[in-house]
Amino acid sequence: MEVKDSIEIVPGFRVGAVDAGLRKQPAADLTLIVADGPCSAAGVFTTNQVKAAPVLYDQACLEANPDQIQAVIINAAVANACTGDEGMRNAKQTADWVAESIGCKPDQVLVMSTGVIGVQLPMSKFQSGIPAAKAALRPDGWSDAACAIMTTDTKPKISSLTADGITIAGIAKGAGMIAPNMATMLSAIVTDADIAPQDLHSALRRAAGVSFNHIVIDGDMSTNDTVLLLASGASGKRIKADNLNHFTEMLTKVCADLAKKIVKDGEGASRFIQIIVTGATHDWVAKEIANTIATSPLVKTAFYGGDANWGRILAAAGRASISDHKLDQNTLSLWYDDLQLVEKGMPLNYDDKRANAIASQPEITVTLDLGQGGREEYTVWTCDLSHDYVSINGHYRT
Amino acid sequence: MEVKDSIEIVPGFRVGAVDAGLRKQPAADLTLIVADGPCSAAGVFTTNQVKAAPVLYDQACLEANPDQIQAVIINAAVANACTGDEGMRNAKQTADWVAESIGCKPDQVLVMSTGVIGVQLPMSKFQSGIPAAKAALRPDGWSDAACAIMTTDTKPKISSLTADGITIAGIAKGAGMIAPNMATMLSAIVTDADIAPQDLHSALRRAAGVSFNHIVIDGDMSTNDTVLLLASGASGKRIKADNLNHFTEMLTKVCADLAKKIVKDGEGASRFIQIIVTGATHDWVAKEIANTIATSPLVKTAFYGGDANWGRILAAAGRASISDHKLDQNTLSLWYDDLQLVEKGMPLNYDDKRANAIASQPEITVTLDLGQGGREEYTVWTCDLSHDYVSINGHYRT
Repeated sequence: MEVKDSIEIVPGFRVGAVDAGLRKQPAADLTLIVADGPCSAAGVFTTNQVKAAPVLYDQACLEANPDQIQAVIINAAVANACTGDEGMRNAKQTADWVAESIGCKPDQVLVMSTGVIGVQLPMSKFQSGIPAAKAALRPDGWSDAACAIMTTDTKPKISSLTADGITIAGIAKGAGMIAPNMATMLSAIVTDADIAPQDLHSALRRAAGVSFNHIVIDGDMSTNDTVLLLASGASGKRIKADNLNHFTEMLTKVCADLAKKIVKDGEGASRFIQIIVTGATHDWVAKEIANTIATSPLVKTAFYGGDANWGRILAAAGRASISDHKLDQNTLSLWYDDLQLVEKGMPLNYDDKRANAIASQPEITVTLDLGQGGREEYTVWTCDLSHDYVSINGHYRT
Repeated sequence: MEVKDSIEIVPGFRVGAVDAGLRKQPAADLTLIVADGPCSAAGVFTTNQVKAAPVLYDQACLEANPDQIQAVIINAAVANACTGDEGMRNAKQTADWVAESIGCKPDQVLVMSTGVIGVQLPMSKFQSGIPAAKAALRPDGWSDAACAIMTTDTKPKISSLTADGITIAGIAKGAGMIAPNMATMLSAIVTDADIAPQDLHSALRRAAGVSFNHIVIDGDMSTNDTVLLLASGASGKRIKADNLNHFTEMLTKVCADLAKKIVKDGEGASRFIQIIVTGATHDWVAKEIANTIATSPLVKTAFYGGDANWGRILAAAGRASISDHKLDQNTLSLWYDDLQLVEKGMPLNYDDKRANAIASQPEITVTLDLGQGGREEYTVWTCDLSHDYVSINGHYRT
């Protein structure tokens, strides 16, 4: 079961992407995914309490209508977040236009937006773009779509997996504002499996829980994070209790592949860093410590510099918000890849050149054993913090 | 009561700073503060669970001996953090050497270290430096001392206040790894007031609580943060219950002045940003939201770029860890200085040029009213995140 970096055709779906003039520069910015008939659908969304209008709109549709979804419309450039009632009306209006255009009901259309916060959607451009996107629909349009949803991404993110008579395929965009749970991240995943909405939702939650929710770029969690999954059933292959685990496994591979692609293309990222915290007595402790290390600006800038300044990792662990839970610095052990640097709180007499060489690699694994006598552990995928991150985000709107 | 940026003489104290060769480049790095006799003393320390040896050592001394402190020895370049038992023995050894040199008991000497984590103190250089520092002692050596404790600071930080017959004066270093509670921050404060240790401690806790504990540079909290306060009593002015509040007020002015100087000289900082969260029903909610905004890389880089990308402030507020406490995006209102940008969740039709002009100032006040109908509020002082921050921290050890 090998994940591929491309999508050919997913039976039951067509996709089109066009330049509707939403961006400052000319480039495709409006993507329409249309299914041949009603689909089972599921979504996972940002846990940010400030939620963009499309998130609130989709949550309501999926609640009301999880077996009747027929289209997804995605725009880049404007996030339609922090836009008040007008933003909610606009989100619904765009779904109405799509429904009218393809001939379904408005609540069969889901919407996703990404871009600047606090700005209203350019509605007339949006409206003109919809017929064009419809005209562009084709079964093999996924690669164009993956480009059209990009913001500060430098590469399109595409993954697909075909096995046992079904295909699962997805596109994603990420780049900045990436934090658990979820990221400034949009992902649209489709499959030709035949599966009930509640099973689809359960599979997506489990798959996202060990993929998208383990990635951190800068610790900022977006208002818009959304992963949508639509199942057309066109393969005729029925997923039920006895093969749901296998489907979830396939879905997890696709989600993990997309999630890693997001981190590797993090804003300004030059290294991919896997942080594993082990030996904890409680999983939430391992998780909080792993996330604190992954979001520490000092840890991230040290990796950018290829500097094995491991003290910053222990210092970040020590400030993790683990409430009254005790962390004993004298039981902490630390490895960069397979090179041990610290043994139960004492720095070892390791080869500093080798440590810096590891810290300078494109991919690094940091393992921190808390030595608490427990077997709980947690893994986070993150990247370094570079000059380019600052450049990209210092002038994002201008 | 005006705080001055200099210290002349604080009766009862002498100070000396020398180059003991601890740094890679020649510069004073070892500072000795000696009192004419035993002092009342108090300290506040990092809440990081990974504590440097000097922190643990000082906490034990102040517990045992709060009215007998006679000296403080401070070194830059090496933090003596994450150094295990050997680090603890070294911290005590340096105190022993100072005690022997000036003629007091080892547990009358406090120690502070700042610099790289995970490296043992260069003990023979340290030992040779002590007689030199003793020889350099003089009543007016504070300005040299403020330079000798600097690491990535670009300016010495000195504040003093004389009123009602007493002087309170302090030096501090900061620059990076600054987060509540406390910072990678060392501060030594002295006064000639005559005050009992428990009153001194109470005054210091209150003053630090509204100054040092409100500053954030990068959200990373150091293993070494320490503020020490010694009172010689040489003024003959007795501080008791009836004038303790006035003393605390004076001390707060000095602490706040030092804390602001630390933020303004934050690593790579180009702007000073005051974040005020108001209208909360609970103070901890206001605090958590203010700190989340202040540590958001996206908020900080937008300010670096002089970009009034205020959506990032609301997005950061929305992801604050406030557990089950509800944040309603439709009651949020936002101001940059006196320009209102958002009214109850709706962006106003404000002048974007003026907003960007405010975001480009050297000092900016951001006010976020949660609109929860409560009167709790919280203020944080922070700075932007610049290319220089990344440069400084990408290659700190090299």
